[in-house]
Amino acid sequence: MKIGLVGFGKTGKAVASTIINHPKFSLEWVLKKSNTLNHRSATEFLGINADDKAIIYSSSTPVREIILNNPVDAIIDFSSTEGIYGYGKIAQEFGIKIISAISHYGDKEKAYLKELSALTTVFWSPNITLGVNYLLFASRFLKKIAPWVDIEVIEEHFKDKEGVSGTAIKIAEALDIEKERINSVRAGGIVGKHEVIFGFPYQTVRIIHESISREAFGNGVLFVAENLTGKKTGLYNFEDLLLPYFSS
Amino acid sequence: MKIGLVGFGKTGKAVASTIINHPKFSLEWVLKKSNTLNHRSATEFLGINADDKAIIYSSSTPVREIILNNPVDAIIDFSSTEGIYGYGKIAQEFGIKIISAISHYGDKEKAYLKELSALTTVFWSPNITLGVNYLLFASRFLKKIAPWVDIEVIEEHFKDKEGVSGTAIKIAEALDIEKERINSVRAGGIVGKHEVIFGFPYQTVRIIHESISREAFGNGVLFVAENLTGKKTGLYNFEDLLLPYFSS
Amino acid sequence: MKIGLVGFGKTGKAVASTIINHPKFSLEWVLKKSNTLNHRSATEFLGINADDKAIIYSSSTPVREIILNNPVDAIIDFSSTEGIYGYGKIAQEFGIKIISAISHYGDKEKAYLKELSALTTVFWSPNITLGVNYLLFASRFLKKIAPWVDIEVIEEHFKDKEGVSGTAIKIAEALDIEKERINSVRAGGIVGKHEVIFGFPYQTVRIIHESISREAFGNGVLFVAENLTGKKTGLYNFEDLLLPYFSS
Amino acid sequence: MKIGLVGFGKTGKAVASTIINHPKFSLEWVLKKSNTLNHRSATEFLGINADDKAIIYSSSTPVREIILNNPVDAIIDFSSTEGIYGYGKIAQEFGIKIISAISHYGDKEKAYLKELSALTTVFWSPNITLGVNYLLFASRFLKKIAPWVDIEVIEEHFKDKEGVSGTAIKIAEALDIEKERINSVRAGGIVGKHEVIFGFPYQTVRIIHESISREAFGNGVLFVAENLTGKKTGLYNFEDLLLPYFSS
Repeated sequence: MKIGLVGFGKTGKAVASTIINHPKFSLEWVLKKSNTLNHRSATEFLGINADDKAIIYSSSTPVREIILNNPVDAIIDFSSTEGIYGYGKIAQEFGIKIISAISHYGDKEKAYLKELSALTTVFWSPNITLGVNYLLFASRFLKKIAPWVDIEVIEEHFKDKEGVSGTAIKIAEALDIEKERINSVRAGGIVGKHEVIFGFPYQTVRIIHESISREAFGNGVLFVAENLTGKKTGLYNFEDLLLPYFSS
Repeated sequence: MKIGLVGFGKTGKAVASTIINHPKFSLEWVLKKSNTLNHRSATEFLGINADDKAIIYSSSTPVREIILNNPVDAIIDFSSTEGIYGYGKIAQEFGIKIISAISHYGDKEKAYLKELSALTTVFWSPNITLGVNYLLFASRFLKKIAPWVDIEVIEEHFKDKEGVSGTAIKIAEALDIEKERINSVRAGGIVGKHEVIFGFPYQTVRIIHESISREAFGNGVLFVAENLTGKKTGLYNFEDLLLPYFSS
Repeated sequence: MKIGLVGFGKTGKAVASTIINHPKFSLEWVLKKSNTLNHRSATEFLGINADDKAIIYSSSTPVREIILNNPVDAIIDFSSTEGIYGYGKIAQEFGIKIISAISHYGDKEKAYLKELSALTTVFWSPNITLGVNYLLFASRFLKKIAPWVDIEVIEEHFKDKEGVSGTAIKIAEALDIEKERINSVRAGGIVGKHEVIFGFPYQTVRIIHESISREAFGNGVLFVAENLTGKKTGLYNFEDLLLPYFSS
Repeated sequence: MKIGLVGFGKTGKAVASTIINHPKFSLEWVLKKSNTLNHRSATEFLGINADDKAIIYSSSTPVREIILNNPVDAIIDFSSTEGIYGYGKIAQEFGIKIISAISHYGDKEKAYLKELSALTTVFWSPNITLGVNYLLFASRFLKKIAPWVDIEVIEEHFKDKEGVSGTAIKIAEALDIEKERINSVRAGGIVGKHEVIFGFPYQTVRIIHESISREAFGNGVLFVAENLTGKKTGLYNFEDLLLPYFSS
């Protein structure tokens, strides 16, 4: 499966590394904002021993030209809110799948994704790790079974992380609990931990997700890419990909 | 919903207490092995302020007579492996639902349950807490999504508990992992904790169930009783009751 | 060691039970507010097979008379803020040790304890479990070693517990952290859990105390009683009893 | 405080980085086995914006010459069992403190350290993180207070880590519990977690240490270097540095 990657910040690099290291996926190109590293290979830059071309282009190169020279099956977006406007129409035209991991889209971008999905397969998840999406899914399921259970959320992150974690807010929304039930711990260099506590009268259930490093995003992306195979045009989220596992 | 309870040991008493305290359920009678407390009311014996008759019979009283005098919708069994032979045929004859929470049934009893289920609704779960069954279900689901994930189990119980916990063994079987991957901690007065660890390359997911007291079994029983309502004759387990929550 | 117990509520009963069950301690009498159970034996009432007299007196019986008829080495107080005034002077007169586990004393009671301690050995701890006091001690020690470490506290209790736990507040005070760093989780039937998180740049340390049941207070009391043996007159707290373990 | 570092593997680099980033310490030189990077600056190589010279020498350069050109107050050793023979005598001659973090020394090396410590200050700890050493210290203290408590250890590491963790074995030895009480979890990419569970009849205490990354060793080293200041000649371990915090 041939991949193009938009965005080459810290997370973009970790994702590129995961794709290059995976035998079933080939990273064809990387699109990055600035001009540094232009036309070098991400494979070589990251010091990985693999055959992926992974040519780095700056955003001044026309995307159409990049794709014509290096066709791909899917474009993965770890850039910024505006990134989608750079490649959306061309992906739609060539029937290339879009996998976006952008955290915060406005209504405008959401509408644009919807529009693009009329003609190609579009996926969007603000947190694209398998673990967090499983936690969301499994938590919602327990709430369905026991709607009266008490639920609290604890999220732990490094000292300087500002505000409540976006993932914790998403958990609270998915479980329909008040924001006050999120407890935010900020201490030292904790990478990221989310715990959902379900308090029953005589027992508790806890689901805990801990991040070890940002490479986790790469594995989530590959899971999504694999599970989008054969999917019709339309707009998908992570839950759409998890649900079919129940029927098997 | 009218209930008859077979078994009045420590767990049986805790379950009786939960049923009596619940407004939607009425405990009609209790069948216990020995002759003590004969014809007293479990409601009064447990010091609960409620209207449930909850007459205590010893096992020398014919079950047919008990049921004719105090008809019930379901019989709940917390007695012993052999308990089922005392009331099985009569329950089948009267179309009374059977809910069995016996931990260890041999092949003979399993076949007998199957036979009874031809004419009435039969449910069996060796651990009837909602939390443990949710943990089993949710864990199996994650394994389906990520079959290559590393799985380990930690179970913690009070010092004198002998052998590996039956629930941990069931978890290992459900997830198809080796028994060696169960870690048994025995310390002080820990009531009961089961933790399933899913190790991904760059993240971990943990599902943890902790028992606070044996009243947890009572809540599990009531969940089962409610969710068996309207079910056709046949043999059910906990997963059969959890699955429909996905379609909603 | 002969013990008199003041207070026979839920915790008082659990403590009585621990003392009676311990071979090195003998419960001579219990002083309770109301008149019920007067002159019965707590040993018999609690259904314990032991020789402890454990005569129950109502607060209308003069304490001097109780002590003259049943001399004790220590009086343990699980009653209420005012309880101390009922037996303080007499304990001082007879040189009986006072062990008070009252949660909230005002300045007046604290001054009174100080006064009594001029002539007898007085101990007071608002939380008399060994585990919580160890947690306080060990946490303070880590803060001394690494004064710059980030500290957060999570306390979890049953749904209806109002306000922040007194123990959590004591932890925050002992570690000199702001009250905002206490995260209070309220869910289901959680008995009581306190966790102190120490966040370092590249590692975390957590100290966690979990209560299983109120019998934990009984073991704390026995630890205190044993460790007060041979102590001079004066006012002691739990830290005074823990410190000597370092010199050995 | 001027530092020389022996060993520049993964951990050595992480430690170098911590020293260079700390304003109170200056990394003067690094001694590494192979010839690569010879005479370059570790500061520049690690991409840190600081003034530390941090000249990299290969082990073919005589240590005496390195020290004469770049005098240091302490030598920190993250190399290998044999590393000590390369610089030990010279450190002793110049009165330079030795801080060794080598995991496994044989009897021969232990005797050599003892010999060197007659004339200079020598410190050795097989695990030089502050957190693990605190855990050891605090656990041993709880065992002293409650020698009858049940103790179990859980250690979690990445999938391919072979054998029981050395730190867990050290914990078991320090607490005098059987090796069978160590539970080893191997899953995914877990960096390193050690949990000591103290089971009391009605409560539990847990002390948990989690590693986030190997930079944790750097902070441990700096703690040791600071706390060795003013110490007389002799052989020290981590406990020797923690104990004085009690007297204050």
